[in-house]
Amino acid sequence: MPDFKAGPRSKVKRLHQRAHYDQETVYRLLDAGVTCHIAYVIDGQPYCTPTAYWRHGNRVYWHGSSASRMLREQAEGLPVCLTATHFDGLVVARSGFHCSMNYRSVMLFGEAHMLEDAAEKQTAVEAYITRLMPGRAEEMRAITAQEIKATKVIFMEIEEASAKVRNGPPADDEEDYALPIWAGVIPFTTVIGEAEACPRVAAGTPTSASLAPYAPGRALDEVLSDLSAAS
Amino acid sequence: MPDFKAGPRSKVKRLHQRAHYDQETVYRLLDAGVTCHIAYVIDGQPYCTPTAYWRHGNRVYWHGSSASRMLREQAEGLPVCLTATHFDGLVVARSGFHCSMNYRSVMLFGEAHMLEDAAEKQTAVEAYITRLMPGRAEEMRAITAQEIKATKVIFMEIEEASAKVRNGPPADDEEDYALPIWAGVIPFTTVIGEAEACPRVAAGTPTSASLAPYAPGRALDEVLSDLSAAS
Repeated sequence: MPDFKAGPRSKVKRLHQRAHYDQETVYRLLDAGVTCHIAYVIDGQPYCTPTAYWRHGNRVYWHGSSASRMLREQAEGLPVCLTATHFDGLVVARSGFHCSMNYRSVMLFGEAHMLEDAAEKQTAVEAYITRLMPGRAEEMRAITAQEIKATKVIFMEIEEASAKVRNGPPADDEEDYALPIWAGVIPFTTVIGEAEACPRVAAGTPTSASLAPYAPGRALDEVLSDLSAAS
Repeated sequence: MPDFKAGPRSKVKRLHQRAHYDQETVYRLLDAGVTCHIAYVIDGQPYCTPTAYWRHGNRVYWHGSSASRMLREQAEGLPVCLTATHFDGLVVARSGFHCSMNYRSVMLFGEAHMLEDAAEKQTAVEAYITRLMPGRAEEMRAITAQEIKATKVIFMEIEEASAKVRNGPPADDEEDYALPIWAGVIPFTTVIGEAEACPRVAAGTPTSASLAPYAPGRALDEVLSDLSAAS
C-alpha cells in the first residue's frame, strides 16, 4: 500500500512524533468518522465549513444542495483542505504549559471536483447511505431523478495527507512528576443515544434493521470503524 | 446586546430557517465547546487546523507553540474563519434525500492577531485554564517566564458570525410520512469518561478539585456551558 508523501502542505512541523503519513493510518482515521471541516478560499477569504463525508478508495466525497454556494465554488478544482478530528480528552498536566488535548486528526489536501453524471451521483449517494446504514437504501423510498439533480456530490482525490495523534498521559517536566498534584486525562467519547422515533412514524413500524449497529452507549467511532471494515 | 450583521461572508445562503446571527446564540454555542477548526490561507493554499479555543468578550483566543508555522503566519492579521461544531445526531429520513445531520455550528470571521505582551499572554493563558478548570491555576506548578515566551497566543475579534442549527426529527416529503418506514434521529453525545490518572501521580494524591465538573457520564457541552455561565 503506497503511503502519502509528506509534501510542503502536509509535513507536520511541530511534534513530529505525533505525525503519521502512512495510508493505513490516514484511511483508518477517516473511516472512524463521518463529519469533518473543509477549508477553501473564495476571493481570498477562507471558509471553514462543517459537513459529512465518506471515503471510497483514495477519494473522499461530500454532498449537499445544488443551491449551495460552497459546493458551486468548489466544483471547479478549487484547492481544499479537509480535516477530520476526534477530540479524545483533556490532558491535565502538573503545569499549565504541558496541559494539552488528546486527539486523532487527519488533514487531507487536494482539489474539489463535482460529479456531473447522474448515475455516478446516484452510486455515490447510495454508497454513502450504505456506508452509514447498511441495507437502509432498500428500506427507504427510492431516490428520484429529480432528487439526484437537486444534489451536488463533490469529491477530492487525496493528494497529500497527514495524521496527527496524541494519546496517553501528560508529558510533564521531569522535576514536576514528584509534585503532589493530580495529573491525568479526562476522556471524551462521542456515544450513541437511544434512537428517537419521528412522531409521525406509524404505530407498529419496527425499527430499521439497518440502524442496529447504532446500539445505545456504543462509541460512534467504533460503530463507524466496524461499518467501514465490514463494507 | 448588539447582534452580528449578516455580512457577505457570514450570510447563510441555504436553509435560512436554520440561521442565527444574534450574539447570544453565537456566544452560547462558542461557550458550549472547547475545540474548533480554523481555516486560513498561506500562499493561496487553504489549511484547516483543529485547535482548542476560548472566548472572552467578543474575542476568541487560541494558542500553541512559538515554533508553530500556523501561528507565525496567523500573527499578522491574516483573515481566518473559525468554526466550532457539535454534531448531535444522524437524521434518518424515509428517503435518502431527506437524511441529514443534527448539528449546532458557529462560524466566525475576523483577522488573527498575536498577543505580544508577556503579561497579557499570561493573563490570557490563565483565563483559558480557569475557564476549563476553575481553581486549577492555583493547584498547578506556576507558569514560568520562559514558558510564556515559548507560547504563542492568537486572538481574533469576531467581526462577522453566524450560527446554524438543525435539530428535531426528519423533514420528509408529505406523502412519505404514511410509508411503513422507521424514521427518526440517532443522537450523538460527547460524554465525559472516568478520569485516568497519570501512572506517575504519587500514591495518595487526591483528585484535583478543579476537575469536579467533569463527572463521568456528563455531556461535555453541558459541563462547558455550566463553567462558562459560572465564570
